[in-house]
Amino acid sequence: MAQSQVSSIDPPRYLTGDKTGLREFLDKFDVFLFDCDGKQVVFVTNNSTKSRADYCKKLEGLGIPSTVEEIFSSSYSSSIYISRILQLPENKRKVFVIGESGIEQELRSENVPFIGGTDPAYRRDITPEDYKLVAAGDESILDPEVGVVLVGLDFHINYLKQALAYHYIKRGAVFLATNIDSTLPNSGTLFPGAGSMSAALIMMLGKDPIALGKPSQAMMDAIEGKFQFDRSRACMVGDRVNTDIRFGLEGKLGGTLGVLTGVSSKEEFVSGGVRPHAYLDKLSDLLASDL
Amino acid sequence: MAQSQVSSIDPPRYLTGDKTGLREFLDKFDVFLFDCDGKQVVFVTNNSTKSRADYCKKLEGLGIPSTVEEIFSSSYSSSIYISRILQLPENKRKVFVIGESGIEQELRSENVPFIGGTDPAYRRDITPEDYKLVAAGDESILDPEVGVVLVGLDFHINYLKQALAYHYIKRGAVFLATNIDSTLPNSGTLFPGAGSMSAALIMMLGKDPIALGKPSQAMMDAIEGKFQFDRSRACMVGDRVNTDIRFGLEGKLGGTLGVLTGVSSKEEFVSGGVRPHAYLDKLSDLLASDL
Repeated sequence: MAQSQVSSIDPPRYLTGDKTGLREFLDKFDVFLFDCDGKQVVFVTNNSTKSRADYCKKLEGLGIPSTVEEIFSSSYSSSIYISRILQLPENKRKVFVIGESGIEQELRSENVPFIGGTDPAYRRDITPEDYKLVAAGDESILDPEVGVVLVGLDFHINYLKQALAYHYIKRGAVFLATNIDSTLPNSGTLFPGAGSMSAALIMMLGKDPIALGKPSQAMMDAIEGKFQFDRSRACMVGDRVNTDIRFGLEGKLGGTLGVLTGVSSKEEFVSGGVRPHAYLDKLSDLLASDL
Repeated sequence: MAQSQVSSIDPPRYLTGDKTGLREFLDKFDVFLFDCDGKQVVFVTNNSTKSRADYCKKLEGLGIPSTVEEIFSSSYSSSIYISRILQLPENKRKVFVIGESGIEQELRSENVPFIGGTDPAYRRDITPEDYKLVAAGDESILDPEVGVVLVGLDFHINYLKQALAYHYIKRGAVFLATNIDSTLPNSGTLFPGAGSMSAALIMMLGKDPIALGKPSQAMMDAIEGKFQFDRSRACMVGDRVNTDIRFGLEGKLGGTLGVLTGVSSKEEFVSGGVRPHAYLDKLSDLLASDL
């Protein structure tokens, strides 16, 4: 995956405690992608294990009121891409899913047929019989209607699913990924992310998937299509330079704001290849009541 | 993984049916790595799921008599590397294994302590409690004596094993791979190989493992150390350009011989970036009784 060299020209401005700087920054934007109050907010998440409805509940649990319409998840973005953008032949409309229920819910919401996913039939060891059936292209194991393989974060990834995904793609299915984050933050450290699910397939196939999450501009186009905002008046807020900040920079948004409560470090924000326009210790620094 | 541009200078000679060519080719060598009769033979395999003893049985089943001493497997090569070459601190000698019983048997033969592998305790879903224990570096889930992560082909790969391997390496364990073949031939087609097990870790860590199987020259050095042959009089025979043929070429063996019964195609042999000195339709063409 070639990483284009994008960064805002100047080193990012450190805004924590800088009231004037903060006010100047806030005044530039009408829309915040992923957080803030009093302005239009769109929550943009690459976590495909949850549906938009799941995400609403999660935000509610965190004391952040939201509606399904304000949320853009990579599972939703992927479903939109499959149902509205991919031109699949009539008999190739089924999706083989590597992932959890969030993807399934969003595919259902777009009436996209799928197999795999959380189906217990795929949560098992590969058998000697499987090898033969796969090699023979037997329809009992390789559904001839599958025209897309969609790879998201799957906590039940296994050898059988990887083997089937590989064979579907070799037989012509489109190779999609909800997102390609290599890691997933949890409990203050990192665990395998959706990108590490695609990694085996990328190595086997020698090609990359079309990735629908941040920093893919397919996701930005979909968000803009839905919310009709002025990009120069929109700001992307996030903790990860290679997804969040890159997403905003490549999407030519008016601003990008890094927060230091997540994956990327201050060093990355200040001297990395992909730098935000400004950064804060934590998101709540943006919400100072006396601004 | 950078692939150096190695190839024999001339296009490979096609030897099937060419008696003179065959005799000339055979006369050049005393040692065949991987197959032939009447000369010293070493069977070199990257399949780490089997031990050398397992491999003997497999060859016997195919009507090919062999002894354990004639076999060099990537699981054996890895065990030798860990026990004799890596200088591990006293309290960091344990290996976390991603792989099957072949690796375990060879580690035992070198008295290398290990965890993971085929232990059913690791064949389960990750739990919310696991995330917390891993984040806390709790010794009930992260053994402080682990100093090496060895990744081979594992038909029971799962999210928990990938997460633990990642954390052991982040905490300082050496990242080893038995081999990095992306695919494994079975039933006339391809399935995920050991390399696809490392792929997720490579993406997460941003670094490659030390790979002990072909084409790693660590394996060639070990073979030479054991058999004391003249490299200029040795020939590597195999079906895969990026492992077998590259192994022989980078090892500066006198010859490399491709066979068309496996992964690589005639086109790859003749015009690829890594070309053998000669090639045959099938290995038995080398054994023509009237030579």
